[in-house]
Amino acid sequence: MIIAISGGVGGARLCQGLVQILSPAELAIVVNVGDDFEHLGLSICPDLDTVMYTLAGLHNPTLGWGRADETWNFMQVLEQLGGDTWFQLGDRDLAVHIERTRRLAAGEPLSSIAADFCQRLGIRHTIIPVTDQRLRTRVISRDEGELAFQDYFVRRRAQPAIVALRFDGAEQAQLAPPLAQTLAGNPPHPQPQGVLICPSNPWLSVDPVLAVPDFRDWIARQRIPIVAVSPIIGGRAVKGPAAKIMQELGVGHDTMGIVDHYGSAVQGWVIDRADAHLADSIRARGHPVAVTESLMTDPTVAAALAHTAVALLRELA
Amino acid sequence: MIIAISGGVGGARLCQGLVQILSPAELAIVVNVGDDFEHLGLSICPDLDTVMYTLAGLHNPTLGWGRADETWNFMQVLEQLGGDTWFQLGDRDLAVHIERTRRLAAGEPLSSIAADFCQRLGIRHTIIPVTDQRLRTRVISRDEGELAFQDYFVRRRAQPAIVALRFDGAEQAQLAPPLAQTLAGNPPHPQPQGVLICPSNPWLSVDPVLAVPDFRDWIARQRIPIVAVSPIIGGRAVKGPAAKIMQELGVGHDTMGIVDHYGSAVQGWVIDRADAHLADSIRARGHPVAVTESLMTDPTVAAALAHTAVALLRELA
Repeated sequence: MIIAISGGVGGARLCQGLVQILSPAELAIVVNVGDDFEHLGLSICPDLDTVMYTLAGLHNPTLGWGRADETWNFMQVLEQLGGDTWFQLGDRDLAVHIERTRRLAAGEPLSSIAADFCQRLGIRHTIIPVTDQRLRTRVISRDEGELAFQDYFVRRRAQPAIVALRFDGAEQAQLAPPLAQTLAGNPPHPQPQGVLICPSNPWLSVDPVLAVPDFRDWIARQRIPIVAVSPIIGGRAVKGPAAKIMQELGVGHDTMGIVDHYGSAVQGWVIDRADAHLADSIRARGHPVAVTESLMTDPTVAAALAHTAVALLRELA
Repeated sequence: MIIAISGGVGGARLCQGLVQILSPAELAIVVNVGDDFEHLGLSICPDLDTVMYTLAGLHNPTLGWGRADETWNFMQVLEQLGGDTWFQLGDRDLAVHIERTRRLAAGEPLSSIAADFCQRLGIRHTIIPVTDQRLRTRVISRDEGELAFQDYFVRRRAQPAIVALRFDGAEQAQLAPPLAQTLAGNPPHPQPQGVLICPSNPWLSVDPVLAVPDFRDWIARQRIPIVAVSPIIGGRAVKGPAAKIMQELGVGHDTMGIVDHYGSAVQGWVIDRADAHLADSIRARGHPVAVTESLMTDPTVAAALAHTAVALLRELA
């Protein structure tokens, strides 16, 4: 039984591999909520939806967000009416946001809504937002002060230079109840035997999950292995601003910067063949390393990468 | 300068005629808000939107609500997610509801949002919700107690027998500021010289407008003529439950029931050729009558009907 920590597209792709090799009882996916925000009066959960759409086979592999079978009629009229159009919402995608917002307003927890949506979309594996409480990533920028995450990420296209990040509400956030149950080894899952950090942006997608005190404490208390898959290939992020942020934060922009960022929190590493020359340096820091193809161009590659990561976890157990 | 009072489809069609023969300075359309409701967290204003879409040329003439160029992808996914689907919301239509809800939540009055939307959709004539305050038509049914209007009208397809109607909030409702300005003869309109009651359901669409005290009082104070176009043709409502409601309320189901309902509030009547035999009875009650084609199968018929009604108003002035 493995706990996978995922952000958006990179994490979702590895999850697509994990569900091919692990049964629903063998996997629980914990998703970042730091990107969540309110827009046009709707509660939007980008990472949760990316993982959900990907596992439901509905995702748009070209855009890396939203659905493949999408239409944009709502957005066209919204523009005509003078509404905010910097965050694109497709016609089908809107149903998720509107129905989720309605159920949240009626008092239902996010994790419960997410579980129900997943079931209705035919997803058998467990997807859990790390917390049902408000946890918001805030970007402290060099030149524009503090920005809400989506203001930075989508509206400003990740252009502002980052000085630091802050996870508003993280210290007060409780684990979502199904995650607390899962970490305690209660059904439907047996006791977790390893944690896999998916190739998502450490600063933007994984740190907000690890910032929830009960999750951080659980990891510290458990003596189970943690393996991470590097989101950097040959000094470049496959998607998103990871490499740019690393430079801004002065931590280099290759996989070593990621290894140093997680430090002793992560035991084993999975890195891309393009970074094979770094394997010895990582081993020198005391971490077992698996080198493999990590650019998940299709579900078969994702399954192979998942297999490598899970094998390393089992080796460390 | 004429004030037209409109509900949904019948009223909107006559407005489509009125705008062909009256300049923007010569017409202000006051629209019922008693049908408005909150659904899926959105503020929905069916009559306002029907008039707006009709004057913008975007209306669906077959359905009598919504847009002609509509798609239903949102609704399909909402159903898949287990959401409420008894009230149909098209993908393009959603933009109006979401953006209006957002602006209302930000504190902007409904009349201001409506004016802006109309301008953006290229409508030159004035469309004003009678009030910016909450005014809700409630149906007191024979067998199912009191129902919210859309619960009665859409969810229950106007099946429950009506005992009475009540306009929740009407007594406290203020005129929407642009309507107060218009009634006072302030720019952009000159002093109103007549009121035209469009062929909308008197009980469901017009009475809620007349229930706003300052509007009722203005009509009582002014000595300007009021002309109504009967929504009943040959004992049948063109669309909607008017005839059914009239029977339930025991007021017959022909145009005489409508004439008696408005009583001395209306001076002149426009009735359909199919009801020509009633003209003498209406005249006997002291009302001038114009008999014409009133089934607005196309904009040309609507313009001719508008011309007849406006001519009668001018005759009475």
